[in-house]
Amino acid sequence: MKVIEGGVTAPKGFAASSFAAGIKYKDRTDMAMIVSSAPATAAGVYTSNVVKAACVLWDKEITSKDKTVSSVVVNAGIANACTGEEGLRYCKETAEAAKKILERNDEVLVASTGVIGMQLPIQKIINGVNALANSLSDSLEAGTLASKAIMTTDTVNKQVAVEIDLGGQTVTIGGMCKGAGMIHPNMCTMLGFITTDCDIDKALLQKALSENVTDTFNMISVDGDTSTNDTLVVLANGLAKNKKIEKEDSDFETFKSALNYVMETLAKKMAADGEGATALLEVTVKGVDTKENARVLAKSVICSNLTKAAIYGHDANWGRIMCAFGYSGVIFDPNKVTLSFVGKDNTITIFKDGFGVKFSEEEATKLLSEETVKVLADFHSGNESATAWGCDLTHEYVSINADYRS
Amino acid sequence: MKVIEGGVTAPKGFAASSFAAGIKYKDRTDMAMIVSSAPATAAGVYTSNVVKAACVLWDKEITSKDKTVSSVVVNAGIANACTGEEGLRYCKETAEAAKKILERNDEVLVASTGVIGMQLPIQKIINGVNALANSLSDSLEAGTLASKAIMTTDTVNKQVAVEIDLGGQTVTIGGMCKGAGMIHPNMCTMLGFITTDCDIDKALLQKALSENVTDTFNMISVDGDTSTNDTLVVLANGLAKNKKIEKEDSDFETFKSALNYVMETLAKKMAADGEGATALLEVTVKGVDTKENARVLAKSVICSNLTKAAIYGHDANWGRIMCAFGYSGVIFDPNKVTLSFVGKDNTITIFKDGFGVKFSEEEATKLLSEETVKVLADFHSGNESATAWGCDLTHEYVSINADYRS
Repeated sequence: MKVIEGGVTAPKGFAASSFAAGIKYKDRTDMAMIVSSAPATAAGVYTSNVVKAACVLWDKEITSKDKTVSSVVVNAGIANACTGEEGLRYCKETAEAAKKILERNDEVLVASTGVIGMQLPIQKIINGVNALANSLSDSLEAGTLASKAIMTTDTVNKQVAVEIDLGGQTVTIGGMCKGAGMIHPNMCTMLGFITTDCDIDKALLQKALSENVTDTFNMISVDGDTSTNDTLVVLANGLAKNKKIEKEDSDFETFKSALNYVMETLAKKMAADGEGATALLEVTVKGVDTKENARVLAKSVICSNLTKAAIYGHDANWGRIMCAFGYSGVIFDPNKVTLSFVGKDNTITIFKDGFGVKFSEEEATKLLSEETVKVLADFHSGNESATAWGCDLTHEYVSINADYRS
Repeated sequence: MKVIEGGVTAPKGFAASSFAAGIKYKDRTDMAMIVSSAPATAAGVYTSNVVKAACVLWDKEITSKDKTVSSVVVNAGIANACTGEEGLRYCKETAEAAKKILERNDEVLVASTGVIGMQLPIQKIINGVNALANSLSDSLEAGTLASKAIMTTDTVNKQVAVEIDLGGQTVTIGGMCKGAGMIHPNMCTMLGFITTDCDIDKALLQKALSENVTDTFNMISVDGDTSTNDTLVVLANGLAKNKKIEKEDSDFETFKSALNYVMETLAKKMAADGEGATALLEVTVKGVDTKENARVLAKSVICSNLTKAAIYGHDANWGRIMCAFGYSGVIFDPNKVTLSFVGKDNTITIFKDGFGVKFSEEEATKLLSEETVKVLADFHSGNESATAWGCDLTHEYVSINADYRS
């Protein structure tokens, strides 16, 4: 597998565009479109929130059936959640406008992110769809601009692309996502779009996506709030001309592993760009009895407000980490745990055999000031491990969220 | 039931004292003692955190057996958690010092709160025990001073006392607690101490305490972090000379209901004094199918960082409240929910029949600026209700916790 430049337009046959529709933001783009030149197979994972945005209901209906997809239309600013029948009608109208201007009968996925409870200005959206369709480009630049158009409180755009070889054919996977707040994915995350020119059976595409979600998007958290709009879709148009993946063979494993890299990279980019964040917090647990327990333990720490605030203060307050393991719901023997901070150049063990190990506060503060703060915990009770990603809790997070609507 | 002045020294036969032992804080008291003149029956509920402080293990052992208790010794500054065998030995030495100076054979409960992972300066603790035993007083003032000595990041001390009549005898219940951060009780909260002169069977005392915990201490949260030290104990010395409560009769119900008032009052005081908080957030849900689902729904909102930050900004961002109900794990129909803000003088309905109701932002901001922000949600799907209490998320919370140890 080779990491390459670009995002959603990196695979063959995918074009993108962006447009300033003036939905809520001023002086910036706020709509994006991704179009596959060939009908694409689609798979998706969506929020587990009972309160689901209209666009989530719309996409879920499409990807659960044996339908091909031509495009995705995304807007930032308004989430189209808690909008009743009117919100659902807007999804239909958006899709119909795209079908008409693109002159394609394949389905159109829609996605929205922003304030909950406001109705979309549908005429602006329709105008946007037309403008987007008329400015499509398969350049890497077009993909980058699309990844910028879907940002809300994100401070950087997020994309990645990789190449793999399947039976002599180069297969490419590209992806982009947005998300900085209301990030605590449960089935998937805010908005993520992955494109690939791989030729693959629909059920296997869904399987690869769903299985990878558990250890990538579902292992990050910014604030513990699972959004109403979480959507992650993958479109596969088959233009790489690889021998179609139709069973769980080595080609499937190669594809799934490359897809996992794309998903993990996008997920980590979201955690690192958490609202107000100054550091990426990476927690790895090992020596745990079951995989699920390992995941729960790692995620408990990245969700702890107290740990997150301590990381912001570069404070080696490891008691809060042990406390978070303790209330995770997993039963373990605290006396068996070894806890360390892992830096670029050195590792400091801070807890062992039931109590704190003496360490240099100065060295610890240095480690805790790195861009990525890595915590490693060995539970010495099994062979399973897991990693979760979060960020620190800062004054800026509070500022951003105390008055988001205005 | 009548609410009266005072706290733990309000019931007959209870004295208290406080002392500046210099454990970690300077220029303030940091140890407290409560002593019952007659051997007291004791019941307790403790943290569900797997990582339990030494003092939690110590108290749990005592209250689970048929032993009488003379006193409680509390310190603030160091939590005696993650301290291994040495930490447990310190509990024993503290209790033995108290037994000796008090010349009593009854058991001694110990409780600690503060930084995790540091060892207690045991000589200072022993000196403190001796000083505390020599300055006991049954005045209301002594109880108040004890409630101040156990504070950490609390900004106000927390106590309450009530009187009830049982068969012509006046029975008094008094309580104090501390807690502002690492507050997300699961079985009970940080440190709470309740005294009563009621004559009651030990099993029934435990039953009243345990059952009341579910709808009081377990319904508050400051930051989602369940402490390693959560302890709530009640001591009953029988000096009110009421006919001993030995079955679940009307006297038991009267006592349990008064105890519930004491516990709910203390719990709400903790939520209102959450680290950095400027408002108490009270969320009531009704019309829910089961009691447990009602509790889960109410608690999900008071735990939502995004909702808490919006309350801080006096921002009527009700979408975050619907979102938090949605990811709580309870299945419901969003279209049936009516959501309102309830102020001192008026109520504003903000969500109904599946989408937002137009309301005056000015009026909403006024409501959201009250000292207690009340949210009421009617799910129109059953007869059960529950209330949970939390607080807003502020810049000050981050400041307090970014550098707590130094």
